[in-house]
Amino acid sequence: MGVSAGIVVTGTEVLTGRVSDRNGPWLAEQLRLLGVDVGQIVVVGDRPDDLRTALQFLASGNDLVITSGGLGPTADDLTAEIVAQVQGRPVRLDQELEQRITAIVEVLSARFGGLRDPESTAIATRKQAMVPEGASVIEPAGTAPGLVVPVAPGRAGPPVIVLPGPPWELQQMWPVAAATAQVQSVLVGAPELRQHTLRLWAVPESELAATLRRSDGGLDGLEITTCQRGGELEIVSRYAPEAEVAQQRLVSAVQEDFPEQLFSLGPSIDELVAAALRERHWTVAVAEVATGGALSARLAGGQLLGGLVVPTESALTTLAGVPAELIAASGPMSPEVARLMAEGARTAFGADVGLGVTGIADLPGSPSTVHLSVVTPDRALARSLVVAGPAGIMRDRVGPVALHLLRQALAGSG
Amino acid sequence: MGVSAGIVVTGTEVLTGRVSDRNGPWLAEQLRLLGVDVGQIVVVGDRPDDLRTALQFLASGNDLVITSGGLGPTADDLTAEIVAQVQGRPVRLDQELEQRITAIVEVLSARFGGLRDPESTAIATRKQAMVPEGASVIEPAGTAPGLVVPVAPGRAGPPVIVLPGPPWELQQMWPVAAATAQVQSVLVGAPELRQHTLRLWAVPESELAATLRRSDGGLDGLEITTCQRGGELEIVSRYAPEAEVAQQRLVSAVQEDFPEQLFSLGPSIDELVAAALRERHWTVAVAEVATGGALSARLAGGQLLGGLVVPTESALTTLAGVPAELIAASGPMSPEVARLMAEGARTAFGADVGLGVTGIADLPGSPSTVHLSVVTPDRALARSLVVAGPAGIMRDRVGPVALHLLRQALAGSG
Repeated sequence: MGVSAGIVVTGTEVLTGRVSDRNGPWLAEQLRLLGVDVGQIVVVGDRPDDLRTALQFLASGNDLVITSGGLGPTADDLTAEIVAQVQGRPVRLDQELEQRITAIVEVLSARFGGLRDPESTAIATRKQAMVPEGASVIEPAGTAPGLVVPVAPGRAGPPVIVLPGPPWELQQMWPVAAATAQVQSVLVGAPELRQHTLRLWAVPESELAATLRRSDGGLDGLEITTCQRGGELEIVSRYAPEAEVAQQRLVSAVQEDFPEQLFSLGPSIDELVAAALRERHWTVAVAEVATGGALSARLAGGQLLGGLVVPTESALTTLAGVPAELIAASGPMSPEVARLMAEGARTAFGADVGLGVTGIADLPGSPSTVHLSVVTPDRALARSLVVAGPAGIMRDRVGPVALHLLRQALAGSG
Repeated sequence: MGVSAGIVVTGTEVLTGRVSDRNGPWLAEQLRLLGVDVGQIVVVGDRPDDLRTALQFLASGNDLVITSGGLGPTADDLTAEIVAQVQGRPVRLDQELEQRITAIVEVLSARFGGLRDPESTAIATRKQAMVPEGASVIEPAGTAPGLVVPVAPGRAGPPVIVLPGPPWELQQMWPVAAATAQVQSVLVGAPELRQHTLRLWAVPESELAATLRRSDGGLDGLEITTCQRGGELEIVSRYAPEAEVAQQRLVSAVQEDFPEQLFSLGPSIDELVAAALRERHWTVAVAEVATGGALSARLAGGQLLGGLVVPTESALTTLAGVPAELIAASGPMSPEVARLMAEGARTAFGADVGLGVTGIADLPGSPSTVHLSVVTPDRALARSLVVAGPAGIMRDRVGPVALHLLRQALAGSG
């Protein structure tokens, strides 16, 4: 049945949504690349009992457990201690590690104007240098070391990899943890686990259900999940190499039923638009209102020559070049204004392709119509949609529509 | 010990990070407002066994379990069925519900150009209208109904609230689910649970540890968690009303030790900057490179008159008004260029306050220095920082620095 792992993400800040977790999914994807299947991610607050029961829950069905977070210097950071207890391993001070952390902290503190309180820093450092007996230490990428903690001799249970919460640190330290002998011995049995994604535009999930039902039997060996969001429908299959034939059958069935709507056999819409622009050696510029700068940010780097965020009539006129008379006649939200915004962005930055998006930034919740326009050297496309909801929802809905309009305009151009 | 709840978020797309979960934290906060404590959020893929073990795990220690997702029309959406099994409740077709869903689906399909495959849609709708015996139905906000499923008579266990995955639908349906008699009877015992946040700027977590240690004993009854990110240090306490005195003691201790660095007793930096601008009746404009439009998006609505994304020298010159000679002399990344970008944004949009941010958008990973400048009608402040990492990391690091620079400039102005 292969090798499986469970992930614990700690931190009340994650549990309460003040910080959104990126570590669990990132680790799940790294593990998949190693052939390890992740069935559960558990998010717990900084409480000893909640962490303990989560570790015990995941230990019972998995070959490996990974934790993220809870390695900081304050008293609520208690992952290392609880993992040691669960694994039946006493902790000891690693004096050399303590010295290495001290050196790191001194460098960091200098940025904040030097150590205010050397004594409390020493206590904090000592806490971070406590290592369970028999554990491997993963050197810190920030200040907190990671650990690989095997279960105590004579007891059954998977090893636990302990990593810090900041994503950048965790990502640097993961390969080192994965390379330890304790983890490698678990990975020995992991088979290849493939993953493939099909992406459709403007297809309701219920229609896809019919395609999948018709192909049933022929798709044995594929674990298929579908997900609809922002107008896109994503079909992800995970499978062992033996099921590659079934996967090809799935691709053919979807191609046959949705020839127009299947827009990608893998890459995201952002990647496809960036590649289409590069291929044509075309640059792009944006003039936006409803998305408040988020579309520029999404296209940033690569072929973006610039962006204009023009939420006022005066900015629409002076910067995006939309005539004041047109705004007076049609209002600041009309297909014509979107078209002139796209043209205005092209002109202002000297870009080949222009994207214009009208609307209201930071909409309080009542429905509003957003007009979009894409202008390339040889054609222009337009789209309008009605959106309700706060600013975040609006960006989630308008962003994909804008990128698909760009994709469609580029597909027929150049 | 109060009332506790566990949350299950389903969906392979969440487990693998293709969609980041907003429902778990949102539900945790709604439950806290009702006095219910959430100890764990479990994320599982669309597999019957993984969902079943997660439900059993959470049922054992909680008074209430909530699920999000897995109510769609495809075969991998199986939450309602598994919850019914775990609660020991057979499912039956609710024909009236089936008719109501059919009516909704017909309206939605019209947007996609009508039903392509009425038969498959009928099967999908019937699947969504299967209701466990004794369950309350929560009317759909999209197409999927929610459920409140009590445990079968004679068995022990908490009721399970079943809600759909799209955040907008879940948020509309939650109040209805919470108002059902089954959930209200659980909430009866819930006490008031307060939460308070202190925010510090540029304080290392280890320094705060000393303050907390010194106040220890005086802080009994507070559950304190601290979290450092992007230069901010957040201290969140959760407590029963009896511990209000301890909370005041915490606030005083932090005020005393960090009078300069404590910038908020609650609101986020974004809220504080927006309020400071409103209070002075000042507008703001942005010229940015490294953040690619993300700073405009963060300030959008309210007092933002506009934004310029100017990643090329030509755009810097023509739109932000930075003289080509200066760029030739100092390069496109210098404190002088940042200052002129801030001035240029003020001029271009006629704003009171200008923010300029240099750098490289979509940086591939090598360290780069980003210069920031804020210009108000009566002063100018500058900051520089070295950032390494991909575009997302860069925005995470530069965003808070820019907002705190705005805060500091506004605090001394006007």
